[in-house]
Amino acid sequence: MSPLSNVRFVLVETSHPGNIGAVARAMKNMGLTQLFLVAPKIFPAADATARASGADDLLVTAKVCATLADAVADCQWVIGATARRRAIAWPRLTARECAEDLMPDLLLGRQVAVVFGREYAGLTNDEMACCNFLMKIPCNPAFSSLNLAAAAQVVAYELFVAAERQWHEQHLQLATFGEMESFYQHLFCTLQNLDFMTPARTNSLQRRIRRIYNRAHLEKRELDILRGILTAIRDKFRLQPPDSA
Amino acid sequence: MSPLSNVRFVLVETSHPGNIGAVARAMKNMGLTQLFLVAPKIFPAADATARASGADDLLVTAKVCATLADAVADCQWVIGATARRRAIAWPRLTARECAEDLMPDLLLGRQVAVVFGREYAGLTNDEMACCNFLMKIPCNPAFSSLNLAAAAQVVAYELFVAAERQWHEQHLQLATFGEMESFYQHLFCTLQNLDFMTPARTNSLQRRIRRIYNRAHLEKRELDILRGILTAIRDKFRLQPPDSA
Repeated sequence: MSPLSNVRFVLVETSHPGNIGAVARAMKNMGLTQLFLVAPKIFPAADATARASGADDLLVTAKVCATLADAVADCQWVIGATARRRAIAWPRLTARECAEDLMPDLLLGRQVAVVFGREYAGLTNDEMACCNFLMKIPCNPAFSSLNLAAAAQVVAYELFVAAERQWHEQHLQLATFGEMESFYQHLFCTLQNLDFMTPARTNSLQRRIRRIYNRAHLEKRELDILRGILTAIRDKFRLQPPDSA
Repeated sequence: MSPLSNVRFVLVETSHPGNIGAVARAMKNMGLTQLFLVAPKIFPAADATARASGADDLLVTAKVCATLADAVADCQWVIGATARRRAIAWPRLTARECAEDLMPDLLLGRQVAVVFGREYAGLTNDEMACCNFLMKIPCNPAFSSLNLAAAAQVVAYELFVAAERQWHEQHLQLATFGEMESFYQHLFCTLQNLDFMTPARTNSLQRRIRRIYNRAHLEKRELDILRGILTAIRDKFRLQPPDSA
């Protein structure tokens, strides 16, 4: 079961049926299957089928809903895709951050909705209030209005790439959070023994060191190498104990 | 000067002028400006202008060429965007790898062409022979034909994100290759002194360790911390020299 089967794209009051078809094609290209339409202006439509270009199965199984609340009722995460900056501060992630952050939830079978607004007017404030957070697609600030299907294509693509990476990393045997914590304790203890980490700089130094290794996203066998180095340092000191009992 | 000003998108024998307009919009959304058209079926066209939706300046400045060779004559890198797998092996990168790899060349002012084939038939073998390498967009293998403008959107987006990251990293003060090499020599020397690195496993161990730190893409000040640790180990041994002269 692909994590992508738990993602739905929700299109709110789309004006042009051709855009609905193009979104269906973009979704199918990226392994997504669940299309929800909130009060589409014209649907079904020949234009939608033409632009779907072989993804008409997604149009056939598309669910038409009266309101956004209906379309996302069973979702644990509701994400609003919007280019407009809002006066009120709202948590905002890029499409890539969003896709990567959602993978664990998708693997757990949680349902995620990505909501796309009207072609010209986006989402209303009430619709935004249904969202856990907003997603933005990085783009030219001087020309930031993407076509609806183009925006859906980028988001679907990021989800596909994140799912592929997730699958790849599953086979990589990545270190767990707990294993990383043991490593950090081992490392920080060693640094104290080396008189490298004085109490005054402990906190900021620990944060900086964590940032390096968290970013590298270590495999278990890589962690084994690093812990082996720490053990070698300890053994060396034990052989010639400078100030131990 | 943005590195993106050195990228051109080349569309070969596009059938539908609407697709040309949609590509222009996708390009402008992502800060790209140079559009080249090789023997378009219909151009200029009302459909192209309508789908450009405000990016008609790119259509006005688009260069129409008779052949692909004309369109890429002054380019240092020619990259073919294609979904089709070829019988002959051809170097192939993902859109993301490609965008990241090209940034240094773009910053140096080198001209890069990304070539998109016909809507239904892609690129001919002769056209592929003009390319330095091929770029693929990761997608559902069971439904892998993206709309031309959708493919252009994904590639343009990846270039924009890579350029943003490049800009961000310029301000990060990343360690240089030479600085990383000095660090590795310092580290490997220390590991030998610790009797951690025996001659038998030296090569594979060095490769694995390089992989960890290369992946983390260290900042200069992070490198300073790691080298500080190595110096602390050396000093500790000097203070209690076990087997030195």
